[in-house]
Amino acid sequence: MSEQSKTRVLGAVLYENFELLDLYGPLEMFGAVGSELKIVTVADEPGPVTSFQGPKTLAEFGYAECPELDLILVPGGLGTAMQLSDDGALISFLRDRSPAAEVTMSVCTGSAILAKSGLLDGRRATSNKQFFDFARAQNDAVDWVTEARWVEDGPFATSSGVSAGMDMALGVIARLYGEERAQEIANITEYEWQRDSTTDPFTRFLNRGSAARIMRSLETR
Amino acid sequence: MSEQSKTRVLGAVLYENFELLDLYGPLEMFGAVGSELKIVTVADEPGPVTSFQGPKTLAEFGYAECPELDLILVPGGLGTAMQLSDDGALISFLRDRSPAAEVTMSVCTGSAILAKSGLLDGRRATSNKQFFDFARAQNDAVDWVTEARWVEDGPFATSSGVSAGMDMALGVIARLYGEERAQEIANITEYEWQRDSTTDPFTRFLNRGSAARIMRSLETR
Repeated sequence: MSEQSKTRVLGAVLYENFELLDLYGPLEMFGAVGSELKIVTVADEPGPVTSFQGPKTLAEFGYAECPELDLILVPGGLGTAMQLSDDGALISFLRDRSPAAEVTMSVCTGSAILAKSGLLDGRRATSNKQFFDFARAQNDAVDWVTEARWVEDGPFATSSGVSAGMDMALGVIARLYGEERAQEIANITEYEWQRDSTTDPFTRFLNRGSAARIMRSLETR
Repeated sequence: MSEQSKTRVLGAVLYENFELLDLYGPLEMFGAVGSELKIVTVADEPGPVTSFQGPKTLAEFGYAECPELDLILVPGGLGTAMQLSDDGALISFLRDRSPAAEVTMSVCTGSAILAKSGLLDGRRATSNKQFFDFARAQNDAVDWVTEARWVEDGPFATSSGVSAGMDMALGVIARLYGEERAQEIANITEYEWQRDSTTDPFTRFLNRGSAARIMRSLETR
């Protein structure tokens, strides 16, 4: 079997109050790869996991039973803060599984979890713009990049907030399956792919803007 | 209670093999409205519904038990074709619930279902570009618009393929909650909102392109 036709397994990590598009933007793009890539969902234990926006996704596997993963996707969201315990289950899972993975990806504040795990030490990484210092506060051994749509460094890819995950996903697909395939997926999904990872229209919101509104809306739920 | 502070209920319709981003792109944007909008998931019956890409979403309600809906969102995807039976449960649900809804929305091939239901008769609507004639074939009493990112006509809003649902969602949010709120949500989600509904970069793929690859990849699953 050639390298090209290998079926990769992508593990999408779920936790309570994950951000919907952080997860599903990249899964849309990776899901369009077809039979060469299979998506599995994984969480602390199998069963329904509630997103910040309300809808529940089923985790097929708990961390312990999760199959081998070629790709790992860690979304962000307001639930991130609950996952940062140094002896927490998600941090342990990532420390255990990431070294064997071809690419470990995060979207938005998901990079705060990767940073806390120590996996990004000495590497370049980015995060959500409006909450940037939240990620930075987890670990100053990471070379934090404030102006980037996404950052690839070795086996890690970290994106800026929410929608940026789609651009990163297409960037990683281009690396694994070629530029032509990535552009074809963008065309099928009628997505205007921002191919330049260094252009970041949202750096102007660094650590400010309307993030406070989201926090307030969470409190009223 | 002022109209402004009314809590609207958005019903996200699920069916087997729905397209992930058709659903979750708009739900990301509507979910950022905060406490003024609540999202519920609904399907033929409550329980897990498998997306085309694999991950399963839980439907909280069956059609019969679904609460009153102010907004209805119908995603598209390769499962659309199975929902087009004239006496099918989804068509009946939409005929029953759409007249009382403030806005009924579709993404991608979801407009084929709305068209088949007769709800779009005499109205302007659009659909996925690469599968456009699939929607058109359901009902020629619809005024099909081949060049549009999304189309709003009375209480209906239909978008082009997959990613276009996010632009439409922000357009509907602008109508219901104001332009400033919609732009703020785009900023929070680091999304470059295409505000002009008439500009369509994907009309060049009308009824052609790489849709055949998706069909082949489905067959090999």
